[in-house]
Amino acid sequence: MITRIDGGVTAPKGFLAAGLRAGIKAGKTNKDMAMVYSEVPATVAGTFTKNRVYAAPVKWDRKIAEEQETAQAVVVNTGIANAATGEQGYQNSKKTAEETGRLLKLPAEQVLVASTGVIGFQLPMDVILDGVAKLVPNLTHSRQAGLDAAEAILTTDTHKKEIAVEFTVGGVKCTMGAMSKGSGMIHPNMGTMLCFITTDAAVDQGLLRQKLREVIDETYNMVSVDGDTSTNDTVLVLANGMSGAPKIETEGEDLDALTAALTEVCTYLAKQTAQDGEGATRLFTAHVTGAPDRETARTLAKSIITSSLTKAAIFGKDANMGRLLCAMGYSGAEYDTELVDVTMSSRAGSIQLVKGGTMPPFSEEEALRILEPEEITAEVELHQGDVEATAWGCDLTYDYVKINADYRS
Amino acid sequence: MITRIDGGVTAPKGFLAAGLRAGIKAGKTNKDMAMVYSEVPATVAGTFTKNRVYAAPVKWDRKIAEEQETAQAVVVNTGIANAATGEQGYQNSKKTAEETGRLLKLPAEQVLVASTGVIGFQLPMDVILDGVAKLVPNLTHSRQAGLDAAEAILTTDTHKKEIAVEFTVGGVKCTMGAMSKGSGMIHPNMGTMLCFITTDAAVDQGLLRQKLREVIDETYNMVSVDGDTSTNDTVLVLANGMSGAPKIETEGEDLDALTAALTEVCTYLAKQTAQDGEGATRLFTAHVTGAPDRETARTLAKSIITSSLTKAAIFGKDANMGRLLCAMGYSGAEYDTELVDVTMSSRAGSIQLVKGGTMPPFSEEEALRILEPEEITAEVELHQGDVEATAWGCDLTYDYVKINADYRS
Repeated sequence: MITRIDGGVTAPKGFLAAGLRAGIKAGKTNKDMAMVYSEVPATVAGTFTKNRVYAAPVKWDRKIAEEQETAQAVVVNTGIANAATGEQGYQNSKKTAEETGRLLKLPAEQVLVASTGVIGFQLPMDVILDGVAKLVPNLTHSRQAGLDAAEAILTTDTHKKEIAVEFTVGGVKCTMGAMSKGSGMIHPNMGTMLCFITTDAAVDQGLLRQKLREVIDETYNMVSVDGDTSTNDTVLVLANGMSGAPKIETEGEDLDALTAALTEVCTYLAKQTAQDGEGATRLFTAHVTGAPDRETARTLAKSIITSSLTKAAIFGKDANMGRLLCAMGYSGAEYDTELVDVTMSSRAGSIQLVKGGTMPPFSEEEALRILEPEEITAEVELHQGDVEATAWGCDLTYDYVKINADYRS
Repeated sequence: MITRIDGGVTAPKGFLAAGLRAGIKAGKTNKDMAMVYSEVPATVAGTFTKNRVYAAPVKWDRKIAEEQETAQAVVVNTGIANAATGEQGYQNSKKTAEETGRLLKLPAEQVLVASTGVIGFQLPMDVILDGVAKLVPNLTHSRQAGLDAAEAILTTDTHKKEIAVEFTVGGVKCTMGAMSKGSGMIHPNMGTMLCFITTDAAVDQGLLRQKLREVIDETYNMVSVDGDTSTNDTVLVLANGMSGAPKIETEGEDLDALTAALTEVCTYLAKQTAQDGEGATRLFTAHVTGAPDRETARTLAKSIITSSLTKAAIFGKDANMGRLLCAMGYSGAEYDTELVDVTMSSRAGSIQLVKGGTMPPFSEEEALRILEPEEITAEVELHQGDVEATAWGCDLTYDYVKINADYRS
């Protein structure tokens, strides 16, 4: 059983954090660096962007997550993504890890790094190293430290994204906490830019990797804000075992509990990421049922929430189902268009708008009432099997354009 | 040699047209129906949307273009797309062709139909048939008739899209004319919603089909406004042979001349479609050179002009090359990211912003000056071969959202 509790990355035993302003971002008050630290080496797993242009920190972290059993710290900066920065960019990520390691008395290879922000510029290393030096003495296990870190990793996000849950392994209470940031350049194949998950459970690295991959595939990889897959997308999990619970080394009840916790955490954060998409006013969910296979269900759900025209219609509370059917049609999925039913639903109720691939007459007034609330779901029934999939997106608004027309200034 | 002349679909010999208001669209003055008629049966070729959800008129026309040698008329309505309308929708397209054929004294199968507008509603058949009855007596070979037809096929377009050219076949002057409409729901796999090309050249149907396919692949299929592939995309060519030029029946100089005319016409209209994309303020061209193969060049060019983030940056005159590199990276194309050079150019000059996959320091002022004009080109050199490709798109603006948030009202 999974219980939601207050907290973030510092909720599990043995995890410390800090977040503060180093001075990378414009403005005078925005926090822009964060650190997470485990008192003991933690089993590590990660998933990363599939973009061929990937940032220097992704290169650094991928090596650690793939080749090492453990890591013990993560240092994050916002403002500059350290992507498209070549060898110098890589050396800067390495130097950040080395300096963090030196101050924490760890090998550099125990330190993961992450960056997000503008692509193509080199990190201001004096500011970064100064930030590292300020972060280390500020590390604490407090609730406030988690909040500070969650705030420091944000870019165009409008609010912090945190969660913590409790679960049981071998009768012992374990905790999992996480923080993440969105909110543009987001598309299937890593829906978030950055997500950091901590847990005091102990788990075999192979199992942790496998379950992380499976959960991300159903959560972050089913989110789209704008169809643009970032260069920096990173999800990292650190499992330090400090709960004292027995180490999970096989399939079974305990692994299921850990997986359920991971699913809860990632589903929540993925939805938060979609809902807080740049300029978004609505969480727009596509729930496809009755599919002949998983790939068909996933492809259709993702195509619906990615369509600019459908997203603009959701913003306008316009029951323009033609666009939704059109987005399904060009998705590449193979299905019978003449069997499709679509019902739009929200907390205001639900209304069937498509029946057998066509649109019977409906009450515009009733549709408008149902499309009014902040969370809208398209329930798409294919009548061609029993497989389902869910994808999360948001509406396309004036503010998306505003935010992105001049992001750097 | 291809010579541009004034005119549209009525420029070639033997083609008549008409355009008028039948009363499908809201408002009181918008023209919403058009007709094109050839005095003699014309060799027909067509390319159509690849969307699995395709409109009823596409189903009707595809059969004619694939199974018949000739057609003699096209009737078009705007306002309602006749897509997702099931069997009734198909019967309505058929009835429109039948009534047009009856009045023109042609078999229904000599009449092509096209619709564009809102998806999911049935055509108001009384209005459509009334429109057909008014169009037939209005058909003339005049310049004004071409203009009226070009105006009547528009939806959210801001201006008419017409072109006419002259070329020579066997020493005889031939003419080709065309009209098309954009401007949302546009993406590779048929960049326009509707395009009608007329010519008084005579050509073997197999050769016409082949050349049309090749030209569309390099022109309309390289255009994107919003990534949404329409249900109604249709390009039709009618070649009636009334120039008196010898029929083109083999490869050679004459076929090359016809192909060059087709290329000129489709390139012009494809660019017009991109430039007049919904809400667009800029034509944004990606020209990829130095690619190892055609597919890589095309994939990269299309990914650049399709990226919402890159398009928003172009709107903001923001030299945010990171987004462009990012869009290349997630395109799926295989290339060496560390060899990429990018130069942005316009009539104001050019500036190299990416060298070897990284961004050297540059003058923001100079970049702003170059990104100011209405036509911007990204020149992307891969240094990995000698193949090139061009794709055309537009910027993403507030007005795109405004137009699409409540299209139906």
